[in-house]
Amino acid sequence: MALVVTKFGGTSVGSTECIRAVADRLIARKQAGNDVVAVVSAMAHVTDELTELAHEMCAEPPEREMDMLLSTGEQVSIALLAMAIAARGLDAVSFTGSQVGIVTDAVHSKAKIAEVHGDCVRAALGEGRIVIVAGFQGITGDGQITTLGRGGSDITAVAIASDIGADVCEIYSDVEGIYTADPRVVPDARKIAELSYEEMLELAASGAGVLQMRSVEFARNHGVVIHSRSSFSDAEGTIVKEADVSMEQAIISGVTLDTSEAKLTIRGVPDRPGIAAKVFGELAKENVNVDMIIQNVSDQGIANISFTTPQDDLIRARHVLDRLATELSAREVLVDESIAKVSLVGAGMRTHPGIAARMFEALARSDVNLEMISTSPIRISCVTSGARAKEAVRALHDEFGLGKEAITIEKMPSGEGASGSGASREGVSAEGAPGEGVPGRGVPGGDGGA
Amino acid sequence: MALVVTKFGGTSVGSTECIRAVADRLIARKQAGNDVVAVVSAMAHVTDELTELAHEMCAEPPEREMDMLLSTGEQVSIALLAMAIAARGLDAVSFTGSQVGIVTDAVHSKAKIAEVHGDCVRAALGEGRIVIVAGFQGITGDGQITTLGRGGSDITAVAIASDIGADVCEIYSDVEGIYTADPRVVPDARKIAELSYEEMLELAASGAGVLQMRSVEFARNHGVVIHSRSSFSDAEGTIVKEADVSMEQAIISGVTLDTSEAKLTIRGVPDRPGIAAKVFGELAKENVNVDMIIQNVSDQGIANISFTTPQDDLIRARHVLDRLATELSAREVLVDESIAKVSLVGAGMRTHPGIAARMFEALARSDVNLEMISTSPIRISCVTSGARAKEAVRALHDEFGLGKEAITIEKMPSGEGASGSGASREGVSAEGAPGEGVPGRGVPGGDGGA
Repeated sequence: MALVVTKFGGTSVGSTECIRAVADRLIARKQAGNDVVAVVSAMAHVTDELTELAHEMCAEPPEREMDMLLSTGEQVSIALLAMAIAARGLDAVSFTGSQVGIVTDAVHSKAKIAEVHGDCVRAALGEGRIVIVAGFQGITGDGQITTLGRGGSDITAVAIASDIGADVCEIYSDVEGIYTADPRVVPDARKIAELSYEEMLELAASGAGVLQMRSVEFARNHGVVIHSRSSFSDAEGTIVKEADVSMEQAIISGVTLDTSEAKLTIRGVPDRPGIAAKVFGELAKENVNVDMIIQNVSDQGIANISFTTPQDDLIRARHVLDRLATELSAREVLVDESIAKVSLVGAGMRTHPGIAARMFEALARSDVNLEMISTSPIRISCVTSGARAKEAVRALHDEFGLGKEAITIEKMPSGEGASGSGASREGVSAEGAPGEGVPGRGVPGGDGGA
Repeated sequence: MALVVTKFGGTSVGSTECIRAVADRLIARKQAGNDVVAVVSAMAHVTDELTELAHEMCAEPPEREMDMLLSTGEQVSIALLAMAIAARGLDAVSFTGSQVGIVTDAVHSKAKIAEVHGDCVRAALGEGRIVIVAGFQGITGDGQITTLGRGGSDITAVAIASDIGADVCEIYSDVEGIYTADPRVVPDARKIAELSYEEMLELAASGAGVLQMRSVEFARNHGVVIHSRSSFSDAEGTIVKEADVSMEQAIISGVTLDTSEAKLTIRGVPDRPGIAAKVFGELAKENVNVDMIIQNVSDQGIANISFTTPQDDLIRARHVLDRLATELSAREVLVDESIAKVSLVGAGMRTHPGIAARMFEALARSDVNLEMISTSPIRISCVTSGARAKEAVRALHDEFGLGKEAITIEKMPSGEGASGSGASREGVSAEGAPGEGVPGRGVPGGDGGA
């Protein structure tokens, strides 16, 4: 017997038939003796339809009213799910974000949870009912309806799991968990049984789309165990929790691919103090998220600055750079929308030097050219051309033997720690070459998309 | 400059185009210097769609969850209307029933308003904003979402008008106000400029569909002036308010027609004390609303009991009577679904005897047979066959000169008070004949559909 919070996304509740399937799953969990809370999103098509209506009314709908509108989506889902459970003869009760006491700040459309008052959840569980909560939404201290932005329903689930002290927060989606690589790209990708929050955060930040960074961070901060699993099967998925000494730490947990960014370069700016600060200061003012940054300097006191940014921010970023180019008498602004970021993530990397070198060698053998590199203690990311990105992922997945069996510290063959000194041979472009090929040094760190 | 509460029903906000038209109207009122509150219903098609979804999930959806579901309908409308106003550059803010403090009892699907805490409405008006409120919905003291049932949005509007002390509560619909008769039946029907609450209540109870009885009662109890007017024109409609001495009291305000009821008769029950109590007690237990009742007794100690009930309650009523017929060894149960109730309403009737007689004479001349009669001090209703009902309405409208000019006390021709002693000549069936033909005596009163 456990206290389980489950979360079902828009696809899982996308039709009345899907909602019935979710109801059956919740009933099975309840009848197995668990206390069950379900957090659900709006039905998949509903949010789009409401957004379209809003834009018919107003080119730029006020965000407060947009939240008022969109929050009806989950309210419909929770009521229908409670009805589906009632139709099976069990007792369920639904709550909106407001009713369940998800108190947020007042930043409409991307509010942050300040506190949760889950008393009504505890009370309803105490009465033996299945509790259904609207994800994605909250309420400010003075009663305004807010939405939590992208991945908001996951955060609702984690926040409630934390508040009621759930044993696990199960996040259901259309995949069975976190894989060593995207199975659509790497057919023999393997499901990962366990990950630390830290690894999951790096994977999420690098493009593993199953779990949102914000919810993993929230789970880490509040010690909530996440179980990422499939709506369509009973298979065990991936557990994400605090790393403990007994946990086998894979050197490499997975390879990720992110094609959602674009690269911009401003060429021929003066190489003097304050130029980079000016460029990124102006970008920040326009709310442009910046991930990886490279600056290289020529002999003539002239520099090139490149950075990557989400495609969504590209138009705004381009505007800023065009303006700066005039102001700074830069030579030109270049945009490359077809880049891809390939990342290798693994907590064991921290204690095993030479991973970067081995990564670059493998990419070179596959004829993949590297344009930018960034690292964290447990991640190495390379920007390459989109055209060669899938080959890059397959080459790395193969090189580190991820498909067959996880390489753990215990199982690690001797000699794996070989030096990364060969980095300069690896097809790494001059612009992006790290000084040593060793993670964490010589490469400007990105801002993680913050 | 006035403080105006306006209410727009589901047809008035049935499409984005309609919502824009409502926005324009509100803006015009605001720009004319008024403080403006709008109460809106769900878009016309939305409630049906949600109800259909609910029944796909569950044959008998729990009423609490049904309220959770249906209350999203108005929430969508208020957000879209606020956006439409924002698109025109004015400042609007929307509130759900919960936010605006419409506190109700816990009777889901037909909750009654207990109190209104309109502080946020007053505050937003104070900031110069147009305030938009979701009709039809409220919240219980412990935070459960409720809906107010049929006509609920009208009641929301009247309740808010009362709470904030509005000068008038304008209820918009697709007709221009209250008419002396349904213009589709009587082409020269005349719009009534002013009515007392009492007259409006009798008209509403007798089938004038524009205003709901509940909201008129609420308005009367709280002294809210109602203005019933059209969404599609700027014409003045009908004002409903407390009768005052200066108000010209028409003897007859209007003629109504109600074809929504059916008549049931249980023939040949024993004529002994307690039989009527048993019949209507059993009907009440099954929630059958009863309007008019006639019992007549033959010489042999055998009675026939007839009553009318809304068509919606007919199946339940029939079940009860069939069971009772066996139990009481009654002769038979008769059902007539094609009846119509024709009513004459007017506050001046109270001080002018002979109206009933004149009504019956006019109907007899038009060859309309009367099956049942009931009266109040300001109303006379006759049940007749549906086939002759429209002729009956036209004959009465003509007889009392309603189409040309209201007959007021001041203008009343002498001799109008002539006796009603001729009732027995009027084609009144034996079953329904009142003893005297005088309103208020000899006829069992209906329960007004309560």
